[in-house]
Amino acid sequence: MNKQPTIILASGSPRRSALLKQIDIDFQVIPSTVHEDFNIDLKPIDFVKHYAKLKAIDVAQSNQESLIIGADTVVVLDGEIIGKPKDENDSKTILRKLSDRTHQVITGMALIWHQKDIDIIFHTETNVTFQKITDEQIQYYIDNYNPLDKAGSYGIQDWFAVCVNKIDGCYFNVMGFPLSKFYKHYLRILEELK
Amino acid sequence: MNKQPTIILASGSPRRSALLKQIDIDFQVIPSTVHEDFNIDLKPIDFVKHYAKLKAIDVAQSNQESLIIGADTVVVLDGEIIGKPKDENDSKTILRKLSDRTHQVITGMALIWHQKDIDIIFHTETNVTFQKITDEQIQYYIDNYNPLDKAGSYGIQDWFAVCVNKIDGCYFNVMGFPLSKFYKHYLRILEELK
Repeated sequence: MNKQPTIILASGSPRRSALLKQIDIDFQVIPSTVHEDFNIDLKPIDFVKHYAKLKAIDVAQSNQESLIIGADTVVVLDGEIIGKPKDENDSKTILRKLSDRTHQVITGMALIWHQKDIDIIFHTETNVTFQKITDEQIQYYIDNYNPLDKAGSYGIQDWFAVCVNKIDGCYFNVMGFPLSKFYKHYLRILEELK
Repeated sequence: MNKQPTIILASGSPRRSALLKQIDIDFQVIPSTVHEDFNIDLKPIDFVKHYAKLKAIDVAQSNQESLIIGADTVVVLDGEIIGKPKDENDSKTILRKLSDRTHQVITGMALIWHQKDIDIIFHTETNVTFQKITDEQIQYYIDNYNPLDKAGSYGIQDWFAVCVNKIDGCYFNVMGFPLSKFYKHYLRILEELK
């Protein structure tokens, strides 16, 4: 829409790339080498903001002249972060816990551009309500998809969609990239540069 | 998951096909030849149920042995159906109306299987909240996408995503196919056939 700066997505997530493409933004991908430590003592919102920033800074160090996007997404139930499942059994345990309940998906996002002294950090929270999921369905999902790779052990953009009764908030945030909130900040950055 | 009946989607919408594929269901597409008459005097929910059923019946007539899925989706603001825009100006008018407000997306769905005497009809409603959209953004969207083809003049799965602040309800319904509600009915049908 406006002439855009060089943008780097500091995330290897193909879903995040797909979402950023969806809104006509050109970018490169340079995944950060930062890994979350789930033993760190931070509340979920502070956790995702902390890691979004670390990831962006990690890539910004050698890319001072680009706008870096760092993002971190977690699934939260009863105030506790649910990470990626350790194994198939853990995946079953997580999905049974989430069944018939509402949990939160929280993404932290950092927009860092050293050269222009831009340093923005924000978070977005979406409520996701699952219907009752049977053990047979959980087994089907584990056998046919790869929940071990996913925060909260599910992907809303695959078969698991049938288990999602409703969401309240930004849908794209559930996929790891809160598009409208990001875009508001992005337009503000373009405005400042004019 | 279970052995499935022959399924026909009575809709030519590529988005509906993509969503039905997403949940691992095999089906054929036979678009109905029914066209909505927006001058008909029906409230939005009755309207979408009426047309979902007409579309399903249209295809079911020559496919008695298959489960037919008919669907009809409308965008509703202040209780009034907003159809597809007539031209570019109409598209602008619609998007200006929807800007900075919450509207409803309602899908009616009919599941008809003559041979098994199955005749199910339901609807799903989702609230969609837009942020304030500038005329410049509306012009960009009209120039780069094809809103003339879309109910309410927007597609949540394209650039327009940046204008969607939040949704409350089923996301897939906004794309024209309420996956979790459909799946519940579908499992019930499979159960009955056991």
